[in-house]
Amino acid sequence: MWKKRCGRQTVALEHPPSIAGWASVVGKKEGEGPLAPYFDLIGPDDSFGEKSWEKAESAMQKQALSTALTKAGQAPSALDYILAGDLLNQCIGSGFAVRGQDVPFFGLYGACSTMAESLSLASLLVDGGFARWTAAVTSSHFCSAERQYRTPLEYGGQRTPTAQWTVTGSGALILSAEGPGPCVTHVTTGKIVDKGIKDANNMGAAMAPAAYDTLRAHFSDTGRKPSYYDLIVTGDLGKLGKEIVLDFFHRDGMDLKNLDDCGTMIFDLEGQDVHCGGSGCGCSAVVLAGYLLDGMTKGRWKNLLFCGTGALLSPTSTQQGESIPSICHAVAISAQS
Amino acid sequence: MWKKRCGRQTVALEHPPSIAGWASVVGKKEGEGPLAPYFDLIGPDDSFGEKSWEKAESAMQKQALSTALTKAGQAPSALDYILAGDLLNQCIGSGFAVRGQDVPFFGLYGACSTMAESLSLASLLVDGGFARWTAAVTSSHFCSAERQYRTPLEYGGQRTPTAQWTVTGSGALILSAEGPGPCVTHVTTGKIVDKGIKDANNMGAAMAPAAYDTLRAHFSDTGRKPSYYDLIVTGDLGKLGKEIVLDFFHRDGMDLKNLDDCGTMIFDLEGQDVHCGGSGCGCSAVVLAGYLLDGMTKGRWKNLLFCGTGALLSPTSTQQGESIPSICHAVAISAQS
Repeated sequence: MWKKRCGRQTVALEHPPSIAGWASVVGKKEGEGPLAPYFDLIGPDDSFGEKSWEKAESAMQKQALSTALTKAGQAPSALDYILAGDLLNQCIGSGFAVRGQDVPFFGLYGACSTMAESLSLASLLVDGGFARWTAAVTSSHFCSAERQYRTPLEYGGQRTPTAQWTVTGSGALILSAEGPGPCVTHVTTGKIVDKGIKDANNMGAAMAPAAYDTLRAHFSDTGRKPSYYDLIVTGDLGKLGKEIVLDFFHRDGMDLKNLDDCGTMIFDLEGQDVHCGGSGCGCSAVVLAGYLLDGMTKGRWKNLLFCGTGALLSPTSTQQGESIPSICHAVAISAQS
Repeated sequence: MWKKRCGRQTVALEHPPSIAGWASVVGKKEGEGPLAPYFDLIGPDDSFGEKSWEKAESAMQKQALSTALTKAGQAPSALDYILAGDLLNQCIGSGFAVRGQDVPFFGLYGACSTMAESLSLASLLVDGGFARWTAAVTSSHFCSAERQYRTPLEYGGQRTPTAQWTVTGSGALILSAEGPGPCVTHVTTGKIVDKGIKDANNMGAAMAPAAYDTLRAHFSDTGRKPSYYDLIVTGDLGKLGKEIVLDFFHRDGMDLKNLDDCGTMIFDLEGQDVHCGGSGCGCSAVVLAGYLLDGMTKGRWKNLLFCGTGALLSPTSTQQGESIPSICHAVAISAQS
């Protein structure tokens, strides 16, 4: 019965689920970046008509889910499961967004790896025959994240050179048991990796070893070489974290020219004052549920390896002097079933 | 392919996974309660040798997992997945416990429903053929929860009559693709239910409608009557929430004499000054991974319906005047495979 596994961390899906719909909703700053043409909705400000940043984040998730469902031609009642999570304490971005959907719900927490985690589990539930339609949803909001993790915006805190900018955005994917693709073919689930980095303003360096670990496991488990993929995309290591991953592979004698990072793609790093790039659950979610999946359907990439990275710290763990446990989940997506 | 579902919210497992090992680790107060004989480890104080309550919570999880693995006769390397979550912001109780386990990890957030959620997904991963061995783990700690959700202990805050007492404890279950049982036969996944309760000190009333909703779905989906089960156990509605669920069913013409609640079972409600009873992810986890599973192997109960309930609020959502979204996941466990 457990023959679907290939290697220690990877499942090769027997019936690759088709990604039948996807949608991305972002804030104003993200809408001024290089990926603007690929987002479904760009808010004129970051409030999305709500009275608090937390409620705005839930509103984005609701909008992303309903848009993705519309693009998949389905009503919420078609969904067998919603899998969602976010960065807010007790994941209220998701809890309040899913409230009223009348769909069985699994809440997840994977920090910025949450889109890869929800996509992994949503795919496994479909492939296992437990669901015909599932949704994978996540979000982050710059303003709700800043006041929770750092300081309220009004304080005007200085940012360090290695800091990343939490993306205001939500991405939603609808998976179907049948369909023309793009399809999820492999799920490589990460282990927690912690190399002792303690600087909460340098999450790229903390997460890079986890990305390297999961990528190596994926290549080893599947027998695929990095060159199999038209694009390997991590998210969100930012500029520094991406360089560290490339350096790790360089030491192994491999130059991953096809590796990019959602955190460096979503903003103009020179012109948008975001230091090392984007971060937050919403970052890789909106890059996938926009630029990447659009590009796959248009033939730009045939095989994509989507690698969500998460830093599993909290302000409390940092205050207690702890280092940053990190994780990376990889999902292989093929343009055709 | 999606034929395994029976009804809107339930999966009937084709190859019911066997619960091959379980363990419960609790604090001093829980060790003075009526279920003391069933816990594997009772801490002499609530620090578990650590310098902070948060680290103590992670230490409990590690101890529960390693004890459950020992009882299952397995090393951590046998595990294909660990599924874990807890109440702490960013789920650091689990993140830091799983760090160093070298096992693929899915982080979950379901508030006090987390043991039912992790048991659900761990069972589906095994039944789907994706894993041979999985672990479902969760925890809560009275002191880490009090300072996060309410006030630090040193403030000596007054508790309202409807308040519940967060259990200091961690439970771990090891699931196997093969074995003699007890076995997980059905997984009923909850929808978010919110009837407008806003009092964060009355979570039993907030969660009771979710428990009623999921129980009704389970009976409807499976065609089973409540009397099919030797014991239906919710966790953790406490005294008031349990009465509300019983009242809902009474109005439907059903008297659920076989319903009990982990929150009322774990403490002596009269003698231990816990008001409406126990709560926290750890509560239903240690009652299941001790008293309930021990009783099943000894023939006390043959069919058990374990219903984890969670209140998906946060201090921020309460401050913003929001009501409490709640959820309940039900897992049917049979003494034999």
